[in-house]
Amino acid sequence: MKLLEDRIIQDGTIKPGGVLKVDNFLNHQIDTGLLYEMACEWKRLYVNCNINKILTIEASGIGLASMTGYVFGCPVLFAKKSKTVNISPDVYSVEVPSFTHKTVNTVMVSREYLHADDRVLIIDDFLATGAALKGLIALTELAGATVVGCGIAIEKEFQGGGPELRAQGYRIESLARIQSMTDDGKILFASGN
Amino acid sequence: MKLLEDRIIQDGTIKPGGVLKVDNFLNHQIDTGLLYEMACEWKRLYVNCNINKILTIEASGIGLASMTGYVFGCPVLFAKKSKTVNISPDVYSVEVPSFTHKTVNTVMVSREYLHADDRVLIIDDFLATGAALKGLIALTELAGATVVGCGIAIEKEFQGGGPELRAQGYRIESLARIQSMTDDGKILFASGN
Repeated sequence: MKLLEDRIIQDGTIKPGGVLKVDNFLNHQIDTGLLYEMACEWKRLYVNCNINKILTIEASGIGLASMTGYVFGCPVLFAKKSKTVNISPDVYSVEVPSFTHKTVNTVMVSREYLHADDRVLIIDDFLATGAALKGLIALTELAGATVVGCGIAIEKEFQGGGPELRAQGYRIESLARIQSMTDDGKILFASGN
Repeated sequence: MKLLEDRIIQDGTIKPGGVLKVDNFLNHQIDTGLLYEMACEWKRLYVNCNINKILTIEASGIGLASMTGYVFGCPVLFAKKSKTVNISPDVYSVEVPSFTHKTVNTVMVSREYLHADDRVLIIDDFLATGAALKGLIALTELAGATVVGCGIAIEKEFQGGGPELRAQGYRIESLARIQSMTDDGKILFASGN
């Protein structure tokens, strides 16, 4: 999606260790007009797929998923990272290591809100090693629901998660696919942009 | 807002200790159509107020704030609860105790994204003792920006945060204001509904 790729070039910054910082428009400050355009692009890509639920993980996926749910006309479910006093004990849960925070989280969704007849689109802001996405896929499949596909804002393809999951047969639509990036700021997209 | 009050009556459940669980439609599963209607109501209430930024706090405020930013046509900034490797060290930060999690969080926003000329609408899902809202107000004022007002989905008025902040002169528009609720499920709204 050229709009997103151009925005990454314009406002993204590369930090040592393969970190792409996009907190100007995606995961701290959020450009809500851009979110809407991204949601519309996933709607175009997944048209006629009978998606009835959007699944994401807190925190930075929630804005993107909420806009996507609005455009698809369906509810959003966000997986939570730690047990709170507010959530039912009756949950599906998996362990997910965090690339950014160097920790392992227990990630859960309530069994009340994910069912065997659900056709799920999984939304997240980043795909790198795929740890979070594998966790969300596992939660969906624990419920017996169908992973119709995944919608990712920015995939760092060179970190391997996307290629691995596509090889397993999952449909992953990443709106910006980064093939390589260098510490001095050069970004090469799979689109050739 | 009758739509929200009716939904609380229909789908909310009361847990011991004054906890109102609305994770069916607001803070685990999200009804995105309802989010949109709520955002439109704040737009109506704050029309002509020249709001140019929406501020919220992760995680459950983000969906609501993103939809509100979309309806207002302005960016959203969400305060983060812990230092990540991705965020600039140049932040405004305050300490915020969490009623739900019984912990104290350091809450921060990057100085890059909050400025003295910003006119801010603060959005959150709940207002109880007001700890989170006071933190977001403090962050806004640390930046020298103007708190035009606050938009709250559900205010538990009897926990005192709303009355205290209104007495200090802040405009707080809560779409459902709960005057009292009992452990056996009776909810009385300020609207009389």
